[in-house]
Amino acid sequence: MVGIQDVYDAHERIRDYALWTPVMTSSTIDKLTDCQVFFKCENFQRAGAFKFRGAFNTVSQLTEEERKKGVIAHSSGNHAQALALAASLIGVKATIVMPKNSPQVKVNATRGYGAEVVFCENSTESRVQVADELIEKHDYVLIHPYNDERIIAGAGTAALELIEEVEDLDYIFCPVGGGGLLSGTSIATKNLCPKSVVIAVEPENADDAFRSFRDGKIYPSVNPNTIADGLRTQLGEVTFRVIQKNVDSIITVTEEEIVGAMRLLWERMKMVVEPSGAVSLAGLLKMKDELYDKRVGVIISGGNTDLTEFFSQLL
Amino acid sequence: MVGIQDVYDAHERIRDYALWTPVMTSSTIDKLTDCQVFFKCENFQRAGAFKFRGAFNTVSQLTEEERKKGVIAHSSGNHAQALALAASLIGVKATIVMPKNSPQVKVNATRGYGAEVVFCENSTESRVQVADELIEKHDYVLIHPYNDERIIAGAGTAALELIEEVEDLDYIFCPVGGGGLLSGTSIATKNLCPKSVVIAVEPENADDAFRSFRDGKIYPSVNPNTIADGLRTQLGEVTFRVIQKNVDSIITVTEEEIVGAMRLLWERMKMVVEPSGAVSLAGLLKMKDELYDKRVGVIISGGNTDLTEFFSQLL
Repeated sequence: MVGIQDVYDAHERIRDYALWTPVMTSSTIDKLTDCQVFFKCENFQRAGAFKFRGAFNTVSQLTEEERKKGVIAHSSGNHAQALALAASLIGVKATIVMPKNSPQVKVNATRGYGAEVVFCENSTESRVQVADELIEKHDYVLIHPYNDERIIAGAGTAALELIEEVEDLDYIFCPVGGGGLLSGTSIATKNLCPKSVVIAVEPENADDAFRSFRDGKIYPSVNPNTIADGLRTQLGEVTFRVIQKNVDSIITVTEEEIVGAMRLLWERMKMVVEPSGAVSLAGLLKMKDELYDKRVGVIISGGNTDLTEFFSQLL
Repeated sequence: MVGIQDVYDAHERIRDYALWTPVMTSSTIDKLTDCQVFFKCENFQRAGAFKFRGAFNTVSQLTEEERKKGVIAHSSGNHAQALALAASLIGVKATIVMPKNSPQVKVNATRGYGAEVVFCENSTESRVQVADELIEKHDYVLIHPYNDERIIAGAGTAALELIEEVEDLDYIFCPVGGGGLLSGTSIATKNLCPKSVVIAVEPENADDAFRSFRDGKIYPSVNPNTIADGLRTQLGEVTFRVIQKNVDSIITVTEEEIVGAMRLLWERMKMVVEPSGAVSLAGLLKMKDELYDKRVGVIISGGNTDLTEFFSQLL
């Protein structure tokens, strides 16, 4: 099973390419929560999310032969942009299959990082089918967004940096969707700071990971209706095993709590955080009565959100 | 005249209270501008703007007698919150005179930092009159938002930190309103990095500093119609002298260019920056043809903007 040495190795590989993102603090939020909060800000990571860490760690380990073939992913989200950027930095061709209703800004960003975008219909089936056809035809190497030990190890480097920088933590809060970030975070935390409690946070409206963890079997994510678009996915076999071993608890938050956390982050910390990235703070706020005087880490996973669209829905 | 030693002294005084804010970079913006840009992010400063540096530097130098009297300012902007916080940290009573139409969020923030808020009518005359009455009655010490050497020296510590961190700069871009930040920035820059060109940026719709600099006399700022609310003030006698000595050029930007720079900062750098804070980037973008391959510093002055209000006007 993927372990702390893999996270160390990943950190070595990404060292000159990923940003060591800042740890931010806010005396207002400390006062509000009665604890000491350390935000690991992956919204400032290259391509706007933690995903770049895992993507780069994975592509940089491909064999010479695999590099020549090129990589492919089907994603309309942060994995697409992260893989496009990682592949371009390493000099590997990337093809991204995106639903044809993807926001133009994400299509542009993915192309901007040098990837070829191939459109498909808006269903998951179509995404998989189009990707499969392209793999069949060109022998591209499929890079899974989370259910891959290299992706997990890369994702774990964010918590590794956080703990190297602030040392002791009593708690760490992390979003969970497919479980890649949570897996990596939990490995880094339980190894470097074993007494730390690892809390995963999920939208109530997409609570498949919560139920999977409770019942010991992976539930599918069926049409989840949440603003946190990065967390609509379900756990994978690889991430589920790591999570079962290392995570202490999964809690859920409402849509209102997610938007409230986003607002707090931009009003008081001046940071643009995407809904999926704000769920960890939402979870902390929900549990604050249990956190008095504790040192708490919060992983802010990304900042790729279209504010104009966000406010046009809100106003 | 206030000089580099005052900036060093200010930095010593604020060391344990102000944040050494991060210098952020963006490969997207570097690619867009064909130069290397270093953003000094005072939107992440305590109370959300560079103003805390000068306010703390000033209050910490008051005599024991002045401290007992308490301080006062008339401001609806960042100076109010900065002074409230600085005074509260030093244990001095602060009174802030605010127009009664001030946004509730600013009133709450100022009170949240422990200041007493006294409301006045919405005119400048009323602000000054109400403050004068309170000074007459209570003997409060008036703290000017910019036309004060202690405020200027404090403001200069942001550029001091930037230059200590990134060393050589060919250019530095800074917003100008009353000129406190620009004065401090120009002193730090011309002393620590003499070959650096200091460019001030002002909204076209509030171009009194541009005209004052050109004609060698201070023009008043008459009903300026700009979204950059922090830059609606006019130069003071003290700041004007420093600026005449140290600044190379003042350029202006349109309202559209200001909003465009704000958008670039939140979309690509995930930072909430207020309009006044984004004018420096707007100026850089306007001059980019002259900056090829240069190392450019940009002072982001603050992040106190109400996004909900911003988008409700925009959408």
